[in-house]
Amino acid sequence: MAKITKISPLAPAEFPNMPVLEGVRLGTICSGTRYQGRDDLLFARLPEGTVTAGVFTRSKTRSAPVDWCRRGIESGWGGRALLVNAGNANAFTGRAGEAAMKQTIAAAARAAGCAEEEVYVASTGVIGEVLPGEKISAAVEDAARTNSTWRQAADAIRTTDTFPKGATRTAVIDGRKVTLNGIAKGSGMIAPDMATMLAFVFTDAALPRTVLQHILKEATDKSFNAITVDSDTSTSDTLLVFATGTSGAGAEINDSQDPRLEDFRSQFLEIMQDLAQQVVKDGEGASKFIEITVAGAEDDRAAKVIALSIANSPLVKTAIAGEDANWGRIVMAVGKAGEAADRDRLIIEIGGQRLTEAGQAAESYDEAACTAHLKGQYIHIFVDVGVGGDGQATVWTCDLTHDYITINADYRS
Amino acid sequence: MAKITKISPLAPAEFPNMPVLEGVRLGTICSGTRYQGRDDLLFARLPEGTVTAGVFTRSKTRSAPVDWCRRGIESGWGGRALLVNAGNANAFTGRAGEAAMKQTIAAAARAAGCAEEEVYVASTGVIGEVLPGEKISAAVEDAARTNSTWRQAADAIRTTDTFPKGATRTAVIDGRKVTLNGIAKGSGMIAPDMATMLAFVFTDAALPRTVLQHILKEATDKSFNAITVDSDTSTSDTLLVFATGTSGAGAEINDSQDPRLEDFRSQFLEIMQDLAQQVVKDGEGASKFIEITVAGAEDDRAAKVIALSIANSPLVKTAIAGEDANWGRIVMAVGKAGEAADRDRLIIEIGGQRLTEAGQAAESYDEAACTAHLKGQYIHIFVDVGVGGDGQATVWTCDLTHDYITINADYRS
Repeated sequence: MAKITKISPLAPAEFPNMPVLEGVRLGTICSGTRYQGRDDLLFARLPEGTVTAGVFTRSKTRSAPVDWCRRGIESGWGGRALLVNAGNANAFTGRAGEAAMKQTIAAAARAAGCAEEEVYVASTGVIGEVLPGEKISAAVEDAARTNSTWRQAADAIRTTDTFPKGATRTAVIDGRKVTLNGIAKGSGMIAPDMATMLAFVFTDAALPRTVLQHILKEATDKSFNAITVDSDTSTSDTLLVFATGTSGAGAEINDSQDPRLEDFRSQFLEIMQDLAQQVVKDGEGASKFIEITVAGAEDDRAAKVIALSIANSPLVKTAIAGEDANWGRIVMAVGKAGEAADRDRLIIEIGGQRLTEAGQAAESYDEAACTAHLKGQYIHIFVDVGVGGDGQATVWTCDLTHDYITINADYRS
Repeated sequence: MAKITKISPLAPAEFPNMPVLEGVRLGTICSGTRYQGRDDLLFARLPEGTVTAGVFTRSKTRSAPVDWCRRGIESGWGGRALLVNAGNANAFTGRAGEAAMKQTIAAAARAAGCAEEEVYVASTGVIGEVLPGEKISAAVEDAARTNSTWRQAADAIRTTDTFPKGATRTAVIDGRKVTLNGIAKGSGMIAPDMATMLAFVFTDAALPRTVLQHILKEATDKSFNAITVDSDTSTSDTLLVFATGTSGAGAEINDSQDPRLEDFRSQFLEIMQDLAQQVVKDGEGASKFIEITVAGAEDDRAAKVIALSIANSPLVKTAIAGEDANWGRIVMAVGKAGEAADRDRLIIEIGGQRLTEAGQAAESYDEAACTAHLKGQYIHIFVDVGVGGDGQATVWTCDLTHDYITINADYRS
């Protein structure tokens, strides 16, 4: 294993202090599937009446667990149990993999005392190896007898992650307080082996399913769909939200745009961005966290395409790793995005300092100041593409370093 | 400069022995723009009656020279002179850059005794610095007095290239022999600084301009538009073809699909693929040359999108650098392309050996044999995406190594 075991320099100082959520029971255990000496299985049970929303990878070669969960969301299943295993993605395993998954779903339904159509599953790890159904099923029963913390849950779903990822927020709906707790994993964004991105948000809000799904989709665009590490897309990416309803808050609201949901939507977006940014901060080999804002584009969609073109450019990412104010590479990445941009009005700023204007280097440009900004861990890039539209988008990524190559050039062996 | 100066391990054994082309006069010289002690300027003069075809970068932030040449091709200008400088791309330099370019065009027209609208120009090098128009113009006059070889021409247009790129072919049109000579440069594909891709093909065929343009476009799809090193796109990529007509062959042919052009089209595609593959073989940090063929797709376009998705995946490229038969990453790259693919019928072969079939690892798969293939310099990947279409495409790329990071993480400083 050419694995780099040091903790990411961008890791948060500590795991957040996450409150208990009434009726949510977390169990973690070591199933022995791939890892020894650490928990690798999370079994969460949720109270009756829990509703579930979800979004998934758009990959055409997605895994059996993703297909199962998609069916659940499309059919409006409630959520009484969530089973997550780390170490084996059960992807590209054909019928045998599907049978193994069904076996674990049956075990989870038995342990939670619910229907199979109330169980959501996620598998993350190596592709092409069939999940050991027996082993996982036995582990579910053991996990059901444990009582784990949010921190333990976040640890149990890790693969190549160098730190556990959690976040918590509170919001007020119509005068009543609700809690949001979330955990996530993922480091190569979004790599196919051990680095699938998974995120789970739990809340005691009592929102109807369709409202929750709308809020989730809206927030995903500005969080998990606005991050990238290496432009690759996993076969297993899964993002689920469980609303237990135990707070009673929001039950009578039928429209996601209802003003009474303003604070909840805002806090929900915050927790999603917090988790998504933690994934980037654990990007394989990452030494710098990069925020890219594009403005002045034809529309928000065009702005995002351009922002992601910059964020995914290996040349931009290596320049930042090298702390080199090489803005020509940003010009290049804007140009290759294919969206409208006016070369002669392009404005590029790094760390708030203007580098270019009117199609050439800005006269005021001070390379030393720019380099000083690039020596920091948090890099800000702003681009106005100069076509005068009000399209705008912000995305987050990390730099591309030698460690990325070291981690990925000899991963399985 | 964190530049790696060793010659690419994939470089051809020697520069081809390229024949003289009647009426084509090559002049190279050191203009002193950026490099010292080597020629950095090519001034080629072409006989009266030369017709020109061209294709260019699709970048929205393209350079002034690209805009000039595009205008020439769209307006049907002949071609009496080609001026190429290495070290300064004159891109993103606004009005000052355009004025400098015009100055060099005027100098080239004077030296060639032709109209300015018969001069084509290409600049490659650093972005954002205005071309020194005086210096280049003076150098053009000196270059016009020299008589250089094809090898010297190929050397003069190099920037970060570790070897000069040339190719030659002969073809028969209607019983008459014609010659094709080509030179190219480019190594980061297609990087914005010193690694712009330029290619120039010269022939004594007497084809009408529209026929030549059709043949060029068709061949570009299967050569320069089928290669990638790092998915980045230059502001200056330029590919020009000059047909002097001195052989007289083909003058009466008005249709690019005329059967009398079959051999020419085939040889033209060959010289284009030869040059394009040399660019990949000089990919920054490349240690392996990778051919990826996708079949069974809905149509050729879909096949190419999937093939490029595999070719551009950092995870696939690092796995090959690590000689790791990690086919899960190929599955991932097929999935993320967004084109139709049937996970349960996907076939993946490496080095002719079947790795997967029917949605899982093939029973016959022998990892040791696959690893042996991956230890070689030439890697063959075949994917049948399993939707039963007859869409097919082949693309070429190289692996992603530590040297790529070393070269690009500290390039300008």
